[in-house]
Amino acid sequence: MTRETILQMLEGVRSGELSTADALTQLAKLPYEDAGFAKIDHHRSLRLGLPEVIYAAGKTPAQVAGIFERMAAAGGDVLATRASAEAFAAVHEVEPRATYHETARVIGMRQQPHVAGVGPIAVVCAGTSDLPVAEEAAVVAEYLGLEVHRVVDVGVAGLHRILSQREVLATARAVIVCAGMEGALPSVVGGLVAAPVIAVPTSVGYGASFGGVAALLGMLNSCSPNVTVVNIDNGFGAAYVAAMIVRSGDRKS
Amino acid sequence: MTRETILQMLEGVRSGELSTADALTQLAKLPYEDAGFAKIDHHRSLRLGLPEVIYAAGKTPAQVAGIFERMAAAGGDVLATRASAEAFAAVHEVEPRATYHETARVIGMRQQPHVAGVGPIAVVCAGTSDLPVAEEAAVVAEYLGLEVHRVVDVGVAGLHRILSQREVLATARAVIVCAGMEGALPSVVGGLVAAPVIAVPTSVGYGASFGGVAALLGMLNSCSPNVTVVNIDNGFGAAYVAAMIVRSGDRKS
Amino acid sequence: MTRETILQMLEGVRSGELSTADALTQLAKLPYEDAGFAKIDHHRSLRLGLPEVIYAAGKTPAQVAGIFERMAAAGGDVLATRASAEAFAAVHEVEPRATYHETARVIGMRQQPHVAGVGPIAVVCAGTSDLPVAEEAAVVAEYLGLEVHRVVDVGVAGLHRILSQREVLATARAVIVCAGMEGALPSVVGGLVAAPVIAVPTSVGYGASFGGVAALLGMLNSCSPNVTVVNIDNGFGAAYVAAMIVRSGDRKS
Amino acid sequence: MTRETILQMLEGVRSGELSTADALTQLAKLPYEDAGFAKIDHHRSLRLGLPEVIYAAGKTPAQVAGIFERMAAAGGDVLATRASAEAFAAVHEVEPRATYHETARVIGMRQQPHVAGVGPIAVVCAGTSDLPVAEEAAVVAEYLGLEVHRVVDVGVAGLHRILSQREVLATARAVIVCAGMEGALPSVVGGLVAAPVIAVPTSVGYGASFGGVAALLGMLNSCSPNVTVVNIDNGFGAAYVAAMIVRSGDRKS
Amino acid sequence: MTRETILQMLEGVRSGELSTADALTQLAKLPYEDAGFAKIDHHRSLRLGLPEVIYAAGKTPAQVAGIFERMAAAGGDVLATRASAEAFAAVHEVEPRATYHETARVIGMRQQPHVAGVGPIAVVCAGTSDLPVAEEAAVVAEYLGLEVHRVVDVGVAGLHRILSQREVLATARAVIVCAGMEGALPSVVGGLVAAPVIAVPTSVGYGASFGGVAALLGMLNSCSPNVTVVNIDNGFGAAYVAAMIVRSGDRKS
Amino acid sequence: MTRETILQMLEGVRSGELSTADALTQLAKLPYEDAGFAKIDHHRSLRLGLPEVIYAAGKTPAQVAGIFERMAAAGGDVLATRASAEAFAAVHEVEPRATYHETARVIGMRQQPHVAGVGPIAVVCAGTSDLPVAEEAAVVAEYLGLEVHRVVDVGVAGLHRILSQREVLATARAVIVCAGMEGALPSVVGGLVAAPVIAVPTSVGYGASFGGVAALLGMLNSCSPNVTVVNIDNGFGAAYVAAMIVRSGDRKS
Amino acid sequence: MTRETILQMLEGVRSGELSTADALTQLAKLPYEDAGFAKIDHHRSLRLGLPEVIYAAGKTPAQVAGIFERMAAAGGDVLATRASAEAFAAVHEVEPRATYHETARVIGMRQQPHVAGVGPIAVVCAGTSDLPVAEEAAVVAEYLGLEVHRVVDVGVAGLHRILSQREVLATARAVIVCAGMEGALPSVVGGLVAAPVIAVPTSVGYGASFGGVAALLGMLNSCSPNVTVVNIDNGFGAAYVAAMIVRSGDRKS
Amino acid sequence: MTRETILQMLEGVRSGELSTADALTQLAKLPYEDAGFAKIDHHRSLRLGLPEVIYAAGKTPAQVAGIFERMAAAGGDVLATRASAEAFAAVHEVEPRATYHETARVIGMRQQPHVAGVGPIAVVCAGTSDLPVAEEAAVVAEYLGLEVHRVVDVGVAGLHRILSQREVLATARAVIVCAGMEGALPSVVGGLVAAPVIAVPTSVGYGASFGGVAALLGMLNSCSPNVTVVNIDNGFGAAYVAAMIVRSGDRKS
Repeated sequence: MTRETILQMLEGVRSGELSTADALTQLAKLPYEDAGFAKIDHHRSLRLGLPEVIYAAGKTPAQVAGIFERMAAAGGDVLATRASAEAFAAVHEVEPRATYHETARVIGMRQQPHVAGVGPIAVVCAGTSDLPVAEEAAVVAEYLGLEVHRVVDVGVAGLHRILSQREVLATARAVIVCAGMEGALPSVVGGLVAAPVIAVPTSVGYGASFGGVAALLGMLNSCSPNVTVVNIDNGFGAAYVAAMIVRSGDRKS
Repeated sequence: MTRETILQMLEGVRSGELSTADALTQLAKLPYEDAGFAKIDHHRSLRLGLPEVIYAAGKTPAQVAGIFERMAAAGGDVLATRASAEAFAAVHEVEPRATYHETARVIGMRQQPHVAGVGPIAVVCAGTSDLPVAEEAAVVAEYLGLEVHRVVDVGVAGLHRILSQREVLATARAVIVCAGMEGALPSVVGGLVAAPVIAVPTSVGYGASFGGVAALLGMLNSCSPNVTVVNIDNGFGAAYVAAMIVRSGDRKS
Repeated sequence: MTRETILQMLEGVRSGELSTADALTQLAKLPYEDAGFAKIDHHRSLRLGLPEVIYAAGKTPAQVAGIFERMAAAGGDVLATRASAEAFAAVHEVEPRATYHETARVIGMRQQPHVAGVGPIAVVCAGTSDLPVAEEAAVVAEYLGLEVHRVVDVGVAGLHRILSQREVLATARAVIVCAGMEGALPSVVGGLVAAPVIAVPTSVGYGASFGGVAALLGMLNSCSPNVTVVNIDNGFGAAYVAAMIVRSGDRKS
Repeated sequence: MTRETILQMLEGVRSGELSTADALTQLAKLPYEDAGFAKIDHHRSLRLGLPEVIYAAGKTPAQVAGIFERMAAAGGDVLATRASAEAFAAVHEVEPRATYHETARVIGMRQQPHVAGVGPIAVVCAGTSDLPVAEEAAVVAEYLGLEVHRVVDVGVAGLHRILSQREVLATARAVIVCAGMEGALPSVVGGLVAAPVIAVPTSVGYGASFGGVAALLGMLNSCSPNVTVVNIDNGFGAAYVAAMIVRSGDRKS
Repeated sequence: MTRETILQMLEGVRSGELSTADALTQLAKLPYEDAGFAKIDHHRSLRLGLPEVIYAAGKTPAQVAGIFERMAAAGGDVLATRASAEAFAAVHEVEPRATYHETARVIGMRQQPHVAGVGPIAVVCAGTSDLPVAEEAAVVAEYLGLEVHRVVDVGVAGLHRILSQREVLATARAVIVCAGMEGALPSVVGGLVAAPVIAVPTSVGYGASFGGVAALLGMLNSCSPNVTVVNIDNGFGAAYVAAMIVRSGDRKS
Repeated sequence: MTRETILQMLEGVRSGELSTADALTQLAKLPYEDAGFAKIDHHRSLRLGLPEVIYAAGKTPAQVAGIFERMAAAGGDVLATRASAEAFAAVHEVEPRATYHETARVIGMRQQPHVAGVGPIAVVCAGTSDLPVAEEAAVVAEYLGLEVHRVVDVGVAGLHRILSQREVLATARAVIVCAGMEGALPSVVGGLVAAPVIAVPTSVGYGASFGGVAALLGMLNSCSPNVTVVNIDNGFGAAYVAAMIVRSGDRKS
Repeated sequence: MTRETILQMLEGVRSGELSTADALTQLAKLPYEDAGFAKIDHHRSLRLGLPEVIYAAGKTPAQVAGIFERMAAAGGDVLATRASAEAFAAVHEVEPRATYHETARVIGMRQQPHVAGVGPIAVVCAGTSDLPVAEEAAVVAEYLGLEVHRVVDVGVAGLHRILSQREVLATARAVIVCAGMEGALPSVVGGLVAAPVIAVPTSVGYGASFGGVAALLGMLNSCSPNVTVVNIDNGFGAAYVAAMIVRSGDRKS
Repeated sequence: MTRETILQMLEGVRSGELSTADALTQLAKLPYEDAGFAKIDHHRSLRLGLPEVIYAAGKTPAQVAGIFERMAAAGGDVLATRASAEAFAAVHEVEPRATYHETARVIGMRQQPHVAGVGPIAVVCAGTSDLPVAEEAAVVAEYLGLEVHRVVDVGVAGLHRILSQREVLATARAVIVCAGMEGALPSVVGGLVAAPVIAVPTSVGYGASFGGVAALLGMLNSCSPNVTVVNIDNGFGAAYVAAMIVRSGDRKS
């Protein structure tokens, strides 16, 4: 039942063709999406200008390319995360404007105008092995319209490295911290900034790191109260939350 | 080494009483907190106006009262979380202005002026058993200066209840969602709002809820990308993050 | 917005007092529960005649009694599960017609007429220590209107006991099996009947039973494909599902 | 010892050729299956008309084809689950009437007459990644004689999609819900229907989804009491239970 | 249907009072226990002379005493494990001949003649904290008719203590080893003897001993291939298995 | 220090060439293996006639062949478990008398005379997928000199199959039961026999079977007290324990 | 067989009273402890001067006092860890010289001369809740003869506090770090010192700290390679290892 | 801000070109590494002469070679752990002086003079499967300048093997013990020596060894108080800690 069919029904009531009782019966069955629900959903994506996102893991290159092409046709920005080089080759064939961010394993294509300097946020990572997750966060955040400062290789066993980056961190409106192994970096960063810290445990480590569980538990038990946590290796989610935080603040003013 | 002792040293250099080489030696040993580090820490608490917080669990009523009194003497707002009625009785004796929020198990005392209408945020909870955690979040958020809208008893098994609260949710700049059992509510709320959602798993449940682990895992695996997670029953942390999000936005404008 | 306010609005359209555009605007905001949603919810409880249920664990006797009294006032059947003798004492004071099922830890009160012989179902338990959970299932099922056959103390280490009960099991339209320790009984029962088996792991056991986890895993991995599982000690849930199964079948005919 | 040999023995007693003591000795050794036990087993499969099922995972294509051929020779319907394309190629060579359901990874062959419109049931899945498990459930259910309504891609982060399917769900006599990640969909569906919900956790997800454990725990802790759970990815078991539920109801009338 | 009723039926056939067809029908319904099954069960307990055993944990003193009295009336030996001093007081009132083994938490009463020197077996424990479990094993084994050699306080951090007991170990036909913490003792003992070793993890320890799980895992992964494992703290089960081993050997000769 | 060097030393003392103080010093350093320790070790293998065993998993075919050849040269029986067909090809080249037991993945070679009819024991398995583990147990047990009765495909969902094998089970002096999934078979078998039952959880299953953990926990929590457990898939260990049990009994007579 | 009895035997050989063959037989049976083994054990405690230690948890005050008295009679230092005030009261009655260290829950008594300034070591703790474990480590270390520097309340969320203690840490020959929650402090301290760091996870925390497991995993996965770990709350073990490290170094020079 | 810029600033103050207030402002921003922090870091590596270490797992041969070459250019010793033969081939091409330790999977190159006989330490391993981890520890320890005694294949099921090595163990200033399966060896070794024992759980085992978790838990719960633990398979970390222990001792004298 679209806006048009409801109007038609109301016109029927007005004209007397439809009894109010029959109209009531029709309204009682009104599917929820017609009652404005789906519109809100739509409004949200329009208002936020968020790109469409494909989770490429477990999809064939052909499937990724097919979905990418269809989404791109809608005119918005398009992203594919966890995308292999093969997936990019397939996408590139149908969408030559698409770019591949290799470390981040992200395919992106911008079709919308881009406002500079929103944010900024910082994306911090403990070691070079955490880079793929950190880059997924950073690249996605940039496609979501944020200005991103990258701070890499600042593990807690060498505090001077993170301490020397305090000024960059201080300007960030949200800080994403990616760390594997013991996952201690978000606690340290959380003590240095007055902004929300989004901690991303990575599956980097071996033995009793249990594929990121040690880092995840470390972050959930952080002694810095400004730390929240997303799923293991979920760079995309961290970027999305950071965008929400920045937009939530911008919306107000 | 305080600001004064550094100035004194520089004066010595200026007057020629102290050689530059000796001054350099003194500076090389400069404890970090003296080099502005502790000041930043101080600046942050001053700028944010955050109250001092006591984690009362595992402390005797006398200990809580003692710390509370000392903190109150500093002139700022004071909070004690996870505080028993006995702890409040002890606090009340030394600080008659302190208030006890029973459901939230929070003792609070305001000494600073309070700006109305900051935020607002929403605190949502799935069932009445989640109320203590939700109230901890709500009361702490209020002491942190935020305007809080409470939305209670909106479990996912009766969707109409949460759907009827969409307008309240839409105005929130951050949404705290407390849920035990399967922890599904943050995913549903996350789909309804365009703001960051801070999910708080509660230890409510039995059997395979494993004291909140089921809810925690559910929230970490949320299909709504705007969801982040804090520790089980950590209402205080959720409120703190929400305050950081709101202040991070306000700082910009 | 109730049925009446919608009718009023439609009358306004019919009479010309309200434009169709304004009516459309009002409808777009229509809260979901008003659009028939809550009614369905209501229809369901009416059609099924299910009693209201209080989860008494973690509530004070006074709270249980208060809720019980309020629910009883609505005229339907009322149940409280996981209720202590103290809770019953408090309920009994306000509702002398309430009954306490001690082993099942259930307080019940019937106010609706009861149809005999619906079902039947069977409730089976492995050992006498599983009896509280089995009785919770059996008593709740009876309040939900089912005829219940109890089969107790039929552990798999003495097969002749369960084999001698095959005729009772064969008549059941659903079989609830409660077992702790290794949780093997549902698999054995599942091989004996041509009905759905609802397995309830109990927290009975010690050491590596991990409070029912061993039984839970055993049941999830059952080699009998007609076995489904509910949470540890969740006798109430098993009874509810059994009622759904029986009603689902009755609805059809 | 078959029915005939027992009769023979009794005739011997009657004619005096066999003493009652010797007959007693023979009876004391009577294997259980001869005493009617195996017959019940047989009766069940005959009465229910259930097909024979091969679990193809871990078997070579040749083994699957060999078992398939042998079972097909018995004249009933035959199913193989978790079957690869290679397994189907081998089966197809010996049984050209066999069909391959690719997404469901099921090979099936019908030899028995089929009654239309039994049930119906609904098979619901949260995302496209859950489709293989959902299709296994749907295809198996169809071979078990049920009418199946498929409802796909109705995750809880976009409630309007599941809400728009309420009428389809309302007609189902059992609802199978497949979901990975946080596993919240069964709770939401459970609140919308008055039928038993069989929840199937899928291994879809990453990080702290632990191969389906997060979804499994979510479902076991569902706040909707009409939800029961089967093993991770166990679409076959869910279909089997649904068939049992429908037949249990039909048997009665 | 007892032996007598079957004989009666056969006599009926012989005399012609009962047709063979009717006799066949009666036999087809023959409950399994009547077909010799229960007798085997009975034979076993008679042949082995095993006492009746009550698991007293979770039972009231009155319940333990009631069951104890009923079992004692049957004339066999009676045991109650995990029994408190209160339970013994209640038992003693109804059965003054009962004895309480305090460390083992076992109540026992012998009514059957006892053959000396069966076995022998050894019961070994690592530390004094493991004594309650070791004593449960030793006392139960003695009531099961075995001669028991106790070897206490022989932890692996002081090898000379266990090495000095090699001769006692060498004569044992089965060795029960109780150990908490790292559970290493069974591996060491297993290397010293040519007999089966029954390992009993105890819940002794703290922190990462996880209530006996560390010891359990250590024992399951023993590098000595003659080690098998029973549940945490299951001294009773270890004694029972040891009795089975000894009787299995004696039966042969 | 061999027997000879000790004698030599004592001769030196006797002849006066060596002072008693010097002799004492030498003796204080006496390595333990010389003091009879290693001899016991040696005696044990001689007395038991146990073959040498190679754990082939993780070794190259060449390594397996090399060790096999060296062990065979000592004249005893030789076994290699978890051996691939490639490993056998390599062994066969250097030892043409070696045999490959394909399902069991065992390479064996007998060089010692073999006594028939020792035991017997029974090896039982729940499903055909458990066969590799059961065959490892059976083949190893045969090389350890035992007579083995195999009982296959007797899952608990079809009790008549295991019940029809009761006579075979009754003669066994030890019963090895291999089962995956819920691991319920040892409990059922344990109730049918008066012998020790060695339960082997197998890694057969999927989802919440967690590679055999569900079966392991089920077996540890068995309600049949004559059940002990070895590690997941440890068919070798079960056979070894069974041999120990049989020999322990034989030793006595 | 003591040193004296061996000498006696050798004298017998020398004098010809004992044949060398008989002497050899006696030696072959030589219990291990007699061959110098126990002496080494004894030497070690003498050389190291380590006090005797009682683990008081799970022992009654009377038991603790009894063991304490007996040990004190031997003339060495005596320690009891995890001791309650009640246990101290009982000890104090029999040994008035004993001291109670309340926070550390340690009862100690020195009877041996004490060398000052051995070490030193540092004992660091993250928060005031970790103090009991840190004090157990510090007090035990002092009784083991070490000089201890305490550094308290230096959590990683306020780096300036730990940084200001760098000089104290730099002089330590071993550093014990006690931390609960995320357990990040040892990694940070490990980066600041060139000495071995012994990390002690504490059970401080709530929710997903799982009684110290989160801290334990964090420490095992430390990015500082000079970190080793002891059991949760094991302050005693950490002190013991620290003493071993210091003595191992001192022994060399 | 380098040493030079600070001197320049102080000269400005001295000459009057810079006011003391401005100088104070500059100093307040002073990055921490300039204040001597980084120097300490540098001093530490210089003083200890520790080689640079590359963790090669997850890096391409080209990446390993590139980093190796760059580090070697600095003139110190260089190590790469977890390095494949392919990685060595690539390193060898750019640094022909590099050596490959195959079992240890370590590439090393010495450029610094080496002092003999530091330590010594012992590296002990339980079985041949633990050799790769033990060799990683031994080889790394040698590059760190220690003398290493290797003790291999001394599992606890054959105590005479470890007992015969007591003299070698007694001379070690630290003992590294690598063991998989039940991880019992460190407890046994800990009882034999008066030095710190560093336990390394290995991932050797199957089934319930859970990739080294069983060994890890066993070691954390060791009854020998001189045992500390590092991560699973972390031979490098164990060697590093051993070097710290030896240097900590040497530093003192």
